[in-house]
Amino acid sequence: MHEMATTAILGASGYSGQETLDRVLRHPELDVVALGSDSLQGESASALDVRLNGSLPAFVSNDEALAAGADVIFACLDNNRAALLEPPADTVLVDLSGAHRLQDATLYPSWYGFEHPKPGALGDWSYAVPELFPPTGPLVANPGCYATAAILALAPLCSAIDPGSVVIDAKSGVSGAGRELKPSSHAGFVLENLSPYRVGTHQHAPEIGQALGFPVCFVPHLLPIRRGLLVTCYAVARANDLRTRLEEAYAGSDVVRVLPEGVVPELARVQHTDGAEVALFEDRATGRAVVVCALDNLGKGAAGQALQNANIALGLEETLGLRLAGVLV
Amino acid sequence: MHEMATTAILGASGYSGQETLDRVLRHPELDVVALGSDSLQGESASALDVRLNGSLPAFVSNDEALAAGADVIFACLDNNRAALLEPPADTVLVDLSGAHRLQDATLYPSWYGFEHPKPGALGDWSYAVPELFPPTGPLVANPGCYATAAILALAPLCSAIDPGSVVIDAKSGVSGAGRELKPSSHAGFVLENLSPYRVGTHQHAPEIGQALGFPVCFVPHLLPIRRGLLVTCYAVARANDLRTRLEEAYAGSDVVRVLPEGVVPELARVQHTDGAEVALFEDRATGRAVVVCALDNLGKGAAGQALQNANIALGLEETLGLRLAGVLV
Amino acid sequence: MHEMATTAILGASGYSGQETLDRVLRHPELDVVALGSDSLQGESASALDVRLNGSLPAFVSNDEALAAGADVIFACLDNNRAALLEPPADTVLVDLSGAHRLQDATLYPSWYGFEHPKPGALGDWSYAVPELFPPTGPLVANPGCYATAAILALAPLCSAIDPGSVVIDAKSGVSGAGRELKPSSHAGFVLENLSPYRVGTHQHAPEIGQALGFPVCFVPHLLPIRRGLLVTCYAVARANDLRTRLEEAYAGSDVVRVLPEGVVPELARVQHTDGAEVALFEDRATGRAVVVCALDNLGKGAAGQALQNANIALGLEETLGLRLAGVLV
Amino acid sequence: MHEMATTAILGASGYSGQETLDRVLRHPELDVVALGSDSLQGESASALDVRLNGSLPAFVSNDEALAAGADVIFACLDNNRAALLEPPADTVLVDLSGAHRLQDATLYPSWYGFEHPKPGALGDWSYAVPELFPPTGPLVANPGCYATAAILALAPLCSAIDPGSVVIDAKSGVSGAGRELKPSSHAGFVLENLSPYRVGTHQHAPEIGQALGFPVCFVPHLLPIRRGLLVTCYAVARANDLRTRLEEAYAGSDVVRVLPEGVVPELARVQHTDGAEVALFEDRATGRAVVVCALDNLGKGAAGQALQNANIALGLEETLGLRLAGVLV
Repeated sequence: MHEMATTAILGASGYSGQETLDRVLRHPELDVVALGSDSLQGESASALDVRLNGSLPAFVSNDEALAAGADVIFACLDNNRAALLEPPADTVLVDLSGAHRLQDATLYPSWYGFEHPKPGALGDWSYAVPELFPPTGPLVANPGCYATAAILALAPLCSAIDPGSVVIDAKSGVSGAGRELKPSSHAGFVLENLSPYRVGTHQHAPEIGQALGFPVCFVPHLLPIRRGLLVTCYAVARANDLRTRLEEAYAGSDVVRVLPEGVVPELARVQHTDGAEVALFEDRATGRAVVVCALDNLGKGAAGQALQNANIALGLEETLGLRLAGVLV
Repeated sequence: MHEMATTAILGASGYSGQETLDRVLRHPELDVVALGSDSLQGESASALDVRLNGSLPAFVSNDEALAAGADVIFACLDNNRAALLEPPADTVLVDLSGAHRLQDATLYPSWYGFEHPKPGALGDWSYAVPELFPPTGPLVANPGCYATAAILALAPLCSAIDPGSVVIDAKSGVSGAGRELKPSSHAGFVLENLSPYRVGTHQHAPEIGQALGFPVCFVPHLLPIRRGLLVTCYAVARANDLRTRLEEAYAGSDVVRVLPEGVVPELARVQHTDGAEVALFEDRATGRAVVVCALDNLGKGAAGQALQNANIALGLEETLGLRLAGVLV
Repeated sequence: MHEMATTAILGASGYSGQETLDRVLRHPELDVVALGSDSLQGESASALDVRLNGSLPAFVSNDEALAAGADVIFACLDNNRAALLEPPADTVLVDLSGAHRLQDATLYPSWYGFEHPKPGALGDWSYAVPELFPPTGPLVANPGCYATAAILALAPLCSAIDPGSVVIDAKSGVSGAGRELKPSSHAGFVLENLSPYRVGTHQHAPEIGQALGFPVCFVPHLLPIRRGLLVTCYAVARANDLRTRLEEAYAGSDVVRVLPEGVVPELARVQHTDGAEVALFEDRATGRAVVVCALDNLGKGAAGQALQNANIALGLEETLGLRLAGVLV
Repeated sequence: MHEMATTAILGASGYSGQETLDRVLRHPELDVVALGSDSLQGESASALDVRLNGSLPAFVSNDEALAAGADVIFACLDNNRAALLEPPADTVLVDLSGAHRLQDATLYPSWYGFEHPKPGALGDWSYAVPELFPPTGPLVANPGCYATAAILALAPLCSAIDPGSVVIDAKSGVSGAGRELKPSSHAGFVLENLSPYRVGTHQHAPEIGQALGFPVCFVPHLLPIRRGLLVTCYAVARANDLRTRLEEAYAGSDVVRVLPEGVVPELARVQHTDGAEVALFEDRATGRAVVVCALDNLGKGAAGQALQNANIALGLEETLGLRLAGVLV
């Protein structure tokens, strides 16, 4: 008899937790057995969204959800809490935080602001962008939203560009900053505004550098939109076949689309989906390559990629549960 | 007896025309004698805005407004029409279009899409950013909105950065594209979206290159906001005194403010004003300098700077009529 | 052998046409055989959206699409053009325009601005909100977006409220005005703005009045959002069982949800779906009933309801092809 | 020798406090002597906004600011704190909160959620909309933003409409909810959304009812914009001269403009100003009067009106310091 994989979500009441839950609910092989939320514990699932009905378990603490014996666990916790996770044996655990993304523990104090509590365990986690480097074990460090876009745009081109020339200018909707209440997420600040933030010090920079093999200059900006993210990457090309390299990298993918020449990525086409768009341009004045990648920060930038990674780690078809079906928006 | 300078506005019904009119109306030394608009000619000024009362002249054709004998003319026309302008003698003429910005006429076909009809006259116009290179005669080519921001950010640093390293990533609200109806200005396209456009081919690139003295890579993006523009400029520094150079460049200015270390420019602080904010950062991973400039595309990026330039060309105080009074938003 | 129903879409390049196409493409029993668009005729389907691949037919004229012999036709045309439609025999034809919604042809001149060219044929069409009055034949007049929301909110309450007291205040995103270029859809007008329009003269007022059986006061407002619509309906109650009436009306529906007491409808929960939310409140100061309905103007307010109506007219399951699967956003 | 009036602002770091400060700074007769803020006390004025320079006093506690001996005090505090205010003698005190707006203290528990601590003092305060009922003493209860708009729209018509028919549907930008961090002000909730709130229970309802002389049905909605507010008021007319009544009410006003027939109020025209627009329409289907009023919730809806009221109470010209100068936006 066919068995579904039991699933727990930690931090289920945040944006990425809620999005993960949405995908798990439409996944034919996953069955929710525990919803963790320290703020909503004891309440029914409908406390999160009025559409969630009684067939779901009530919220428990994140510790209880972790210990629920699920086959697969999605951890949507803050970095500090996630760094302390003790993975249960024989369990696929996808960490959507940044706590296990950097292999070099000495980078945590300066980029994340804390000493990593379990530096020796970092090697047990695989940092996984499925199209380029899929997970190699049950512990998956799910990439950051900006990092995913930058890596999709640049990783296939690494040997064809001048590393010292790379600049990544990123723009994201406000959901990228999470559901937490803070002044920079107040609508009175965000609306009809645009603001660069953590200029030159954002924690996704070393993650991108680790994946590409060289340090990069990365600056994010907060957009007055709910969801969606776009990175504009600049590099001096050392080869003429950049388009071919991109097309070959994603030739077999149902998730990443390389756009035809002259077509510009658009947030509107990737919002509410788990796909990504990549496009290549040449700057007329300087000849630089400009590679643009657009994705939904909560889709391919978080929950969608987490599902992809979990599917692979579980031996399931990679795109089960993903939002790719719709041809148009 | 004191005489006000008579003023004509061509293209008064577009965004920059309307904004210019607003500033002229609050200017103590300028008096509107002609409002040109080929689409509104024959109608009263209130056809443009219900708040405009009967003391203003009715709209006439742009040709009539040009010939009205005004002391100062603001031309807010499209590039093709503006390129054909015959400046009346003894008149200050500020052209807000791109038709007289490039000194090298051979650049017009590739960047503007038309052969310049009066290439020999381009030398009569001065391209003027008042804080850096004020107008030198009565014919003023008012800089583009993006170009103004990029030049304010980078011109004081030209000898202190590596020219080949410069990348300018720009983001603007939709009013930058004018009041004309086109698919990319339709709210159904703009809202909850972000889109790069004319990637590597935007006509402000050669204008910036001309002002800085070397070609630059420039990519603009359309923001889902009404007004405001921010450029993020990246450059490899060759000196340690970049902040000092910026502060010295704008030390005496009431228009451009260099922000204290760590303070990020914000569109909300410059919208509806004629001021600009500039801030300098250092990228931790690569050491690159990141210079950010924010301004209102219709203020310092168009009408505000046009008034500044006109004031100088008329021998008046530079900031008369500008929106700088308000301390807060 | 099982046969899919062949399908043509007229006006496939507008918003409601594109949304209809999206649903038809995910519908297991419908097969696209003709895409009509007078502006895109001769071009491939990817001219509409880069994601549309080669398996779809190229665009033809709307006349050709009408004559293509499809089993079901969705007409997404402007009112004037739609009023002239000659329905092919034995065909389900769903008209998404307003051309066949009013049974009384004499109302067209004042509310729609044209004399109806085929007044005698209006009786052949059924105006259909599936939950309340499903289609009774192959010719379906699909209700307006505002009208759908107002009717869902008020029709179950008609005998329990004072007809003379009804006020309907409506707010819609800009996609409700279509893809056509016009000043009121320019993002420079829409963003950071709110504007009432056609105050007291909007053409959905008589449509609502016809469905409810009495005239209503209806005022729409344009919101600075892409999609989604909310109506706030006010009425003096004559009975105490309003909530029960609403709950009973939609008890069996997978499309319309009556929210629990105290829960407020939210656009974010219905955007990109074909569902609707209805909620009932009592005003403390006057005792009035306040009924709020939220839906996506392009979903339940247009294409979603068109699919529902077509499914019923074709004898298929009502919700095939609809966007109802997602539990969360 | 001419003396400026010394001025203190309590709660100067909130939205309405900051907007009040902006107007006081441009006011020729007011001089800031104390800035109160319990959260920023001890910090310099630039902590609020980088543009505030050293000539302003540093922040002190609200208690200290209250006791600073200023000639005029603007209190921008929350309702509970403001209800406890002990007005210093011989001081003009304008309370921008709701703590002194209702003359009937018994209304506070149900509408404001607290027992009024000083019910006997409510009679000392005058609730003042300057165009209709100016302040009558030094203690001014500044009206709520929604209430101001509704009263401007309806007060001149009270005797010409059926009181039982009045419905007020209101829409406001997010700054109306203040700078406090709360889920409903999170940009992830506000953007691309619209939500009615406190349906039938909002505390501005009794305030409007008190001013008009009869209870009204009032429902507010949160708009995805930063600032601006619009009320759409519905009433059955009992007279034919409604337009005349409105025009006469505001004939002498520089603040409130009655729009010509057919012109619709627009938030864009009142944002960042202290003015208001009122327009009258007739509903074709039911004959109802529809009166629309637009204003900036932080301008005429808060700080602008506070300045107007203070000017009157101080015997100064009513519009000193107000933002009315600009003809266009």
